[in-house]
Amino acid sequence: MLSHRGNTMPASPIRRLIPYANEAKRKGIEVYHLNIGQPDIPTPPEIFEAIRNFPDKVLPYGPSEGLPETREVIADYFRRYGIEVSPDEVFITTGGSEAIIFSLMAITDPGDEVLIPEPFYTNYGGFAHMSSVRLVPIPTSVEDGFRLPPDEVIEERITERTRGIIIITPNNPTGTVYTREEMERIGRIAKKHNLFVFSDEVYREFVFDGKRHTSILEIEGIEDRCAVLDSISKRFSACGARIGFVVSRNKKFLDALLRFGQARLCPPTIEQMGAIAGFKYMNNFMQDMVDEYRRRRDVVYEEIMKIEGAFTLKPEGAFYTVVRLPVKNAEDFIIWMLTSFSVDGKTTMVAPANGFYATPGKGEDEVRIAYVLEVEKLRHAMEILRLGIERYRNEVEG
Amino acid sequence: MLSHRGNTMPASPIRRLIPYANEAKRKGIEVYHLNIGQPDIPTPPEIFEAIRNFPDKVLPYGPSEGLPETREVIADYFRRYGIEVSPDEVFITTGGSEAIIFSLMAITDPGDEVLIPEPFYTNYGGFAHMSSVRLVPIPTSVEDGFRLPPDEVIEERITERTRGIIIITPNNPTGTVYTREEMERIGRIAKKHNLFVFSDEVYREFVFDGKRHTSILEIEGIEDRCAVLDSISKRFSACGARIGFVVSRNKKFLDALLRFGQARLCPPTIEQMGAIAGFKYMNNFMQDMVDEYRRRRDVVYEEIMKIEGAFTLKPEGAFYTVVRLPVKNAEDFIIWMLTSFSVDGKTTMVAPANGFYATPGKGEDEVRIAYVLEVEKLRHAMEILRLGIERYRNEVEG
Repeated sequence: MLSHRGNTMPASPIRRLIPYANEAKRKGIEVYHLNIGQPDIPTPPEIFEAIRNFPDKVLPYGPSEGLPETREVIADYFRRYGIEVSPDEVFITTGGSEAIIFSLMAITDPGDEVLIPEPFYTNYGGFAHMSSVRLVPIPTSVEDGFRLPPDEVIEERITERTRGIIIITPNNPTGTVYTREEMERIGRIAKKHNLFVFSDEVYREFVFDGKRHTSILEIEGIEDRCAVLDSISKRFSACGARIGFVVSRNKKFLDALLRFGQARLCPPTIEQMGAIAGFKYMNNFMQDMVDEYRRRRDVVYEEIMKIEGAFTLKPEGAFYTVVRLPVKNAEDFIIWMLTSFSVDGKTTMVAPANGFYATPGKGEDEVRIAYVLEVEKLRHAMEILRLGIERYRNEVEG
Repeated sequence: MLSHRGNTMPASPIRRLIPYANEAKRKGIEVYHLNIGQPDIPTPPEIFEAIRNFPDKVLPYGPSEGLPETREVIADYFRRYGIEVSPDEVFITTGGSEAIIFSLMAITDPGDEVLIPEPFYTNYGGFAHMSSVRLVPIPTSVEDGFRLPPDEVIEERITERTRGIIIITPNNPTGTVYTREEMERIGRIAKKHNLFVFSDEVYREFVFDGKRHTSILEIEGIEDRCAVLDSISKRFSACGARIGFVVSRNKKFLDALLRFGQARLCPPTIEQMGAIAGFKYMNNFMQDMVDEYRRRRDVVYEEIMKIEGAFTLKPEGAFYTVVRLPVKNAEDFIIWMLTSFSVDGKTTMVAPANGFYATPGKGEDEVRIAYVLEVEKLRHAMEILRLGIERYRNEVEG
């Protein structure tokens, strides 16, 4: 009965082990969730207030491209970064997810190829599958902090079916922030080979140690062949709002988004009120939030360094890091943590990194850690992870 | 730069004439919108209250399949109709739109075909395009109230690529409610030819004159090959909430929906609170809402009967009707109404029906009227439409 695409659609590696976590909880174990990018930081009260103050008696469809005010505050937001964007160049989506699938569909046909540095945010794999597009991985590795490889490594993967390149900066899952030089290289390659650049900048603010984020919108010469894919989920700690957006200066591309968007009518109306408030009052909360993630990054990195045989470089941004663990199979280890290990009734869940790679066999001994808990809990969760690894190596793999 | 699917994605016929309406409004003309199914009926206050009372400090991701409570109240809702549904058989989507695209993708691969009685809710065309699926229209016509044609007319359209059949009851855009006998015929054909039935029952409650709605879930022998596609948008006058759902007893199909759903993480969280309240307190408002639509239906039908040369049968359900107008090209007429006609500073906008047909050339002289305004405004809007037709026939076509 099912289609091939239905049968072979991959389950989310972030979510598919959740049944094990639920089973642990049923047995009374508390699970520290470092597997999913669901922050515990309170959503700014300005956002809830705007949602509560929705003034109308009818909860109506909005425009397919988003409410005018949502588009305006996002254009203003980019202007504060010195990036000139007009409201017409902003298209509001239902979460960053929809920004991805609409953008992919606007540029690719079934059978086309898109390049993406690997490991990558796993749901790109899901959306490529749904769009019948093949993701072609560009190899990067934990040893050199997941930096982009030389041009020729990228260019030798370009075929006549290649239509675009996806870049995630700050990167989910690696925490790498691409330098301006790396972004310019992407731009040059895109121009040379007639590719479109999809730049996922969801974590734009989460950049540490004085580094500076470079948006694809700042790169010259590719104005007509790039789009920013974005979302308020992480920036405003409002994952459940499902408000994302695309920014592009290519009018034909925007028009295709609009036609895709008309089919699904509109993004959520009330939660756009929250998004508008978030962008308006960002100065009230953003710096505190970034500082908090920087402290957590420090704790996670410190604790990883205590794990014998584990390896990672210090994450530069976002709130993730990919770590090589001293275990043969990270997924088996994660399941074991949920089914057979706890400290004082608590255990820790991380995400297997193999699901973030398109190349079979890669990332088998790596995990993604999302540092989305407050410092004290995070330290405890990381200690439990370390103790689990020690026990697992001795008793299971030993 | 754009893909074929991006270039050829159809614009919504309901929305693509909106620039003409906006232009009319800029000139100070008030536009009665009978083009879009956006009701003016207040969203029940219970729904807004639930949204306002969201208790948590963080607006988090929910489960990809929807919150447990949302799935439970929907299972209860079906039980009140005597239809046994378990919460596990309910999958919450971001609007009915997502229910459509996920269900299509679970059953079809690019190049497959799906049957659908024509005219049909235009966005099925959009979603089929996005899924690279061909919709094969089953002809129906205004003369016989858009009833299903005999089995052989349906069966002769089945090829080896046909994977399913879409049925919308009560129908958007025609207002037809399929009888139990018609639903059983669909079931028999689906079983005989190994097809999946997608049954869009968004307007389940909006059935008039003592007629009874038959759900696909009541049809025996196709339990493993059907799904209900549904949404709270119209039932609760909450189009902007973007909460829909799929109900099916096919576990593999539900599992495919879950994997598609994991890629987009979750449907909106806060607006599920509203949906839960809507289903809990339905008895407080549903009958009044249905009575109101019945009164409007009567007004629309009465007024159509006054238009010389117009034709339709009395709509049985939903809040639409497709009318043949005495004009050569309905779209030209609609644009003329927005650009060149008004009565006391007001004009009326309806949707061209050609966009609801897959067969080129069909529906050119038909429009869809959505009776989504209160009785007095609706009567005035319909009078303006009648006067517009008279003038247009005399001065433009005459």
